[in-house]
Amino acid sequence: MKNYFLHNEWQIIEEGFNPEMHEAAESIFSIGNGKMGQRAMFEETYSGKTLQGSYIAGVYYPDKTRVGWWKNGYPEYFAKVLNSPNWIKMNIEIDGESVDLFKHAPANFKRVLDMKTGLLQRSFDYTTSTNKKFTVSVERFMSKEDDEIACIRYSITAHASADINWSSGIDAHVKNTDSNYDEIFWSRVSEKNDDNSAWLTSKTNKLHFEVCEGFFVKMFIDKNEQNAAQYSNSDWNVSAHWKLKAEQGKTYCMEKYVSIVSNMYYDNASLESACQNNLQKARELGYDKLKTRHTNSWASLWENADITIDGDIAAQQGIRFNIFQLHQTYSGRDPRLNIGPKGFTGEKYGGSTYWDTEAYCIPFYLGTSDASISKQLLRYRYNQLDKAIENAEKLGFTNGAALYPMVTMNGEECHNEWEITFEEIHRNGAIAFAIFQYGLYTGDLSYLNEGGAEVLLGISRFWSQRIHWSDAKKQYVMHGVTGPNEYENNVNNNWYTNYISNWCMKYTAEVIQNISNTDKAYYNDFCTKTKFNADELVRWKDITENMFFPADENLGIFLQQEGYLDKEQILATDLPTNQRPINQHWSWDRILRSCFIKQADVLQGMFLFEDHFDVETLKRNFDFYEPRTVHESSLSPCIHVIQATKLGYEEKAYELYLRTSRLDLDDYNKEVHEGLHITSMAGTWMSVVMGFGGLRIKKDTLSFAPMLPKHWSGFSFLVRYRDAIISVRVNKEKLFLNLNASHTLSCEVYGETISLEPNNEVSLNLKAIYVQ
Amino acid sequence: MKNYFLHNEWQIIEEGFNPEMHEAAESIFSIGNGKMGQRAMFEETYSGKTLQGSYIAGVYYPDKTRVGWWKNGYPEYFAKVLNSPNWIKMNIEIDGESVDLFKHAPANFKRVLDMKTGLLQRSFDYTTSTNKKFTVSVERFMSKEDDEIACIRYSITAHASADINWSSGIDAHVKNTDSNYDEIFWSRVSEKNDDNSAWLTSKTNKLHFEVCEGFFVKMFIDKNEQNAAQYSNSDWNVSAHWKLKAEQGKTYCMEKYVSIVSNMYYDNASLESACQNNLQKARELGYDKLKTRHTNSWASLWENADITIDGDIAAQQGIRFNIFQLHQTYSGRDPRLNIGPKGFTGEKYGGSTYWDTEAYCIPFYLGTSDASISKQLLRYRYNQLDKAIENAEKLGFTNGAALYPMVTMNGEECHNEWEITFEEIHRNGAIAFAIFQYGLYTGDLSYLNEGGAEVLLGISRFWSQRIHWSDAKKQYVMHGVTGPNEYENNVNNNWYTNYISNWCMKYTAEVIQNISNTDKAYYNDFCTKTKFNADELVRWKDITENMFFPADENLGIFLQQEGYLDKEQILATDLPTNQRPINQHWSWDRILRSCFIKQADVLQGMFLFEDHFDVETLKRNFDFYEPRTVHESSLSPCIHVIQATKLGYEEKAYELYLRTSRLDLDDYNKEVHEGLHITSMAGTWMSVVMGFGGLRIKKDTLSFAPMLPKHWSGFSFLVRYRDAIISVRVNKEKLFLNLNASHTLSCEVYGETISLEPNNEVSLNLKAIYVQ
Repeated sequence: MKNYFLHNEWQIIEEGFNPEMHEAAESIFSIGNGKMGQRAMFEETYSGKTLQGSYIAGVYYPDKTRVGWWKNGYPEYFAKVLNSPNWIKMNIEIDGESVDLFKHAPANFKRVLDMKTGLLQRSFDYTTSTNKKFTVSVERFMSKEDDEIACIRYSITAHASADINWSSGIDAHVKNTDSNYDEIFWSRVSEKNDDNSAWLTSKTNKLHFEVCEGFFVKMFIDKNEQNAAQYSNSDWNVSAHWKLKAEQGKTYCMEKYVSIVSNMYYDNASLESACQNNLQKARELGYDKLKTRHTNSWASLWENADITIDGDIAAQQGIRFNIFQLHQTYSGRDPRLNIGPKGFTGEKYGGSTYWDTEAYCIPFYLGTSDASISKQLLRYRYNQLDKAIENAEKLGFTNGAALYPMVTMNGEECHNEWEITFEEIHRNGAIAFAIFQYGLYTGDLSYLNEGGAEVLLGISRFWSQRIHWSDAKKQYVMHGVTGPNEYENNVNNNWYTNYISNWCMKYTAEVIQNISNTDKAYYNDFCTKTKFNADELVRWKDITENMFFPADENLGIFLQQEGYLDKEQILATDLPTNQRPINQHWSWDRILRSCFIKQADVLQGMFLFEDHFDVETLKRNFDFYEPRTVHESSLSPCIHVIQATKLGYEEKAYELYLRTSRLDLDDYNKEVHEGLHITSMAGTWMSVVMGFGGLRIKKDTLSFAPMLPKHWSGFSFLVRYRDAIISVRVNKEKLFLNLNASHTLSCEVYGETISLEPNNEVSLNLKAIYVQ
Repeated sequence: MKNYFLHNEWQIIEEGFNPEMHEAAESIFSIGNGKMGQRAMFEETYSGKTLQGSYIAGVYYPDKTRVGWWKNGYPEYFAKVLNSPNWIKMNIEIDGESVDLFKHAPANFKRVLDMKTGLLQRSFDYTTSTNKKFTVSVERFMSKEDDEIACIRYSITAHASADINWSSGIDAHVKNTDSNYDEIFWSRVSEKNDDNSAWLTSKTNKLHFEVCEGFFVKMFIDKNEQNAAQYSNSDWNVSAHWKLKAEQGKTYCMEKYVSIVSNMYYDNASLESACQNNLQKARELGYDKLKTRHTNSWASLWENADITIDGDIAAQQGIRFNIFQLHQTYSGRDPRLNIGPKGFTGEKYGGSTYWDTEAYCIPFYLGTSDASISKQLLRYRYNQLDKAIENAEKLGFTNGAALYPMVTMNGEECHNEWEITFEEIHRNGAIAFAIFQYGLYTGDLSYLNEGGAEVLLGISRFWSQRIHWSDAKKQYVMHGVTGPNEYENNVNNNWYTNYISNWCMKYTAEVIQNISNTDKAYYNDFCTKTKFNADELVRWKDITENMFFPADENLGIFLQQEGYLDKEQILATDLPTNQRPINQHWSWDRILRSCFIKQADVLQGMFLFEDHFDVETLKRNFDFYEPRTVHESSLSPCIHVIQATKLGYEEKAYELYLRTSRLDLDDYNKEVHEGLHITSMAGTWMSVVMGFGGLRIKKDTLSFAPMLPKHWSGFSFLVRYRDAIISVRVNKEKLFLNLNASHTLSCEVYGETISLEPNNEVSLNLKAIYVQ
């Protein structure tokens, strides 16, 4: 669907309506504010294909597991993101016939998502069966400032006279498409209205999340407010009705103000009053002020988060779309929340937490937001440590070993494929690495004493039990794993997993040693609480000194797993295009037998631990693995961009950058109708900042090594480092650095140390190619 | 449940009723005649736990696949054995209260399955709520002679007077317990009755198997026939009613004669008349004659199939139970039928065809039955060759490569676990081996020209594409397989699969060569039909000359797969008993990582290809693998018995023999309530005949090497070899051989050639231990 949406620096634009593309567009035009979000369904009736989705952060449903063949250790439930009451709903009858864009194709249809302001707008000309014409324009937002409030302004200009019967309401009788047993996940609690508003309360089955949603409308004829709404309620529904006789040339407008509150933040008894309070606030502020507060909030967010790309509108649009969606999804205000792979844009993957958060999202939030936001994400895992320990116990581990779940909402494992659930255990490594990385970016080590060390200990204990001694090899080995490249299952000695497991044990030992040296009191508490015994370090040391890492000496590369070179070695370019993506064309055994790599695996490890290897080693591995990588995971191309830029492979970097940044806009993986790839969007940010910007933060040193793709005339970004914000700007010749901080900061550019003074822009010559 | 059923040479006996054991007993007491079969549910109402199951051979339902995570190549359907209309159903109301053994525990309960005659009998004393006493006795059989007829004789002796309202009928409103979407698989066609009988027709959904079942009853008071039945019909039901005033001391008996016909054998239009014809025949013959025909049929079957074991009733009962159940399941009269792993005793595994048939059942039928029976089983696969080729095409294979399904009813794959469906491909090898073995036993090579060679070619083409050249090893390898030991998945170079695949190519080449030398006309047809090109032989030869077979030189063993010795090497005896069976206690990853072996794998290969290896090699492999084998598959112990006897490990052989022969009677795997392990019962036969009897048939030579376990005082069996039947009898000192044939036959005993004359028993000294 390349070029279906128009290229524009700040906007996503659809011109002309195509029902075949409607579900894809519903995903692309999704809006959200971190507390709630929604696919871009139409307000009015639509009888064509649509994936309805309104989501409330933290409100989920544990759907009973459905598998063909049960295995011991599978979880009983899979936490599903919940399609919640539909608050945009309207039905507009013109002379008794519902407006329905599937039945009557609109003319001059245009839909715009303005990323600068977070406003979703739509306009079209509509002709009824009896040939009466109307012009419709709609604006909608979910307030980034007042995050329990959302508004719609829906205007109809009549080009003929007609009877219009306009109702607007909230419909709680909603279903998940992804429901294992085709159940409704909600129960009714109450529907109510008074003369000025209506509200309903619904409760999720099993976990009893309770949600109250209320609304009121204001109606205008040619901007003159009317007082004509009739509120009513019925089972599962509340609504407002406006009967009007439209006259040619007049514009009829309904503003809908909605409040959505849940018992995540209020007790059940106060839900209705919390909802009413929001409605009262909305009534007082009115549409325009609410809108201004919302757009101001986005404006201040962009100040610290924007990336500009000059001379390449597609690339500019792509990166902004990624940043925008990430900030729509997660605000960092609540440690119970996390970033689901589809955010608020679809049901797939259950909307739960994956290792994506630590491996991809945390660097993004560290680089663009206050440290407190990333810390919430770390706390999320600490709060779930007990469940990770229980999870490991289910699999036969002991002594406080922790295995974090592959997929979770509340800390319990949800996933149920043995090769993933039980074997894709490298996720534990990313969780440890995020703790390390948080310290690097922020300089704040306090989290280690606030639970971080306990998390690290649980993880290292797991590794030390999962690894075993091979008498045959006279080395430690790790069997039966699935690495980041999920196109291999149940392999032995996946290099990445072996490497990160060993790093975890070394880092944990260092952290514990440090605590015991510097904070005896906490160290004693820690030992008591975790029953930590210094003998554990002996085994970790023995493992890390005698671990097997598969490698090939002739090629000078690490091996993705033992036996990888036994495979038939062909390249992705050898694949006929009609067989790609291979996961839509090949049976699973064929994929597994092939040498093709879904996403960075060895290279993922060389990305995380880049400074452990010289650039020649990186080059050999990149040159070997990149041509075998089919990038059929959204998480893959960004890592390769970063390495390609480092190695000076500009064309490859640019090609993969487009793939990551426009993955959803251009629907590379042919699945955008199911929702957006939210977590990988953080990888896109990394691909600009760490790729083309060459940002690295290592051991108290910030460094840059920008390169400018020839398709661009310049680019700029900001990055947070400890208490400073550094703005980086690149044009065809120069590189400009500006420090926003209260002190000088030294950093490295192309390996040279330079000193930055606050607000004193420094310019340097840009290097076309810089290979470390 | 060891010793729950009493030990007896010819009978299975349950004394006393235990509702907890009822489902297990329903399995154990199952009856069948090859065309239909049934679990031993009670005729009268039973409100306790019961697994209802009446099955008709060949009538199945393609249930829509249910998986958690779909993979390309998965089949749309899983063929389920169908619980069909319940023809035993009765309801007996005494003074308005239904007889129900769950509500009123019976006294003197006894249930007997007589294996010699195929009769299921039950008797008990019953006391009503009002303390009235009755004695009940029931006899049931499904005629082995008249295989569309079944009978019940149900007698009630009154020890008090009472009003009895006795109804008996057929209930077509039945469900499968194993239904993926909780659907009813049947539709009604019609229910009818006249004054003397009632019948109904039902149709399966989707495939429209149609079944007509009819019955009539005869009633007796103290053996005087009554004429009092009222027939009726209603939706899904037909029934006969008998209202009687029971008097103390009198016996009331109802004989129920049932006819079951399906459109497997009649067209739909003639189903009712076929059913009526059977009823007419039953009416003419009467209960006693029908019973005699049935028991005579069993008697003649036992003449050729019995194995006697002296001095060990448990062992004797075990082997007869196995032989009996096999002959209840399959008669070899129809090439569309096969032997489901649970036969007619439960729903698990879908009742379909597995590699069990070729690897276990064919040797049994070859050894005990006319060659035509085994040939039907070979034809079954030939008739499904087209589907096997389609199946391979789905997985990316070309040029007529055939992959037979893991599980099938009509030739289409049913199974949906990638590691099994796509990777447990050794099944292809067993199918080829059965063709080879059929020739060995029967001397009849005609099947090769009747499709056998085509099957072999499809299989060898598959192997030649599934194997690839490893540049690293400079050898051919086979990746991503699951061997017979399903406690390893997706391994590389499973020795067994590599070995049998290479054998297939060599054997196929030999067969094709032979055809081209001896039957040019057929060879030309064959080449035209299959597009066979002699160049294919070149690749096969290259593979078989350069194949990699994992082995350990120090230990002198073949390796189950590459890397097996990297595992932590512990023994089954090291496992705490509370962790066994491990498949009920360990998560799947832990099972996979462990060295524990579910069932013979390397040893399965050394069993099939015994004469390719010297006995020292077998001993080293057996000594290594046996202690690591947990025998959690029913197919495992029998193979180890055969090898243990060969190696002179008498105690081990005896222990494993009991495990295989009494697997269900003693419920070793804690799952007999789901049904019996029918296919592994053929392995039990092998364990006696090939194990303790030492039978081998290799290249036109029949050989024996009996050993007598010290727990036995003797044993005997018969074996068919080409046109002869040889009876073998062993006592503490001697071995007796008798030939039933029209010519002399030479065979080997303990490696010495002897000549057998027809009907002239030869006796020889028994060797305590004979190691080749």
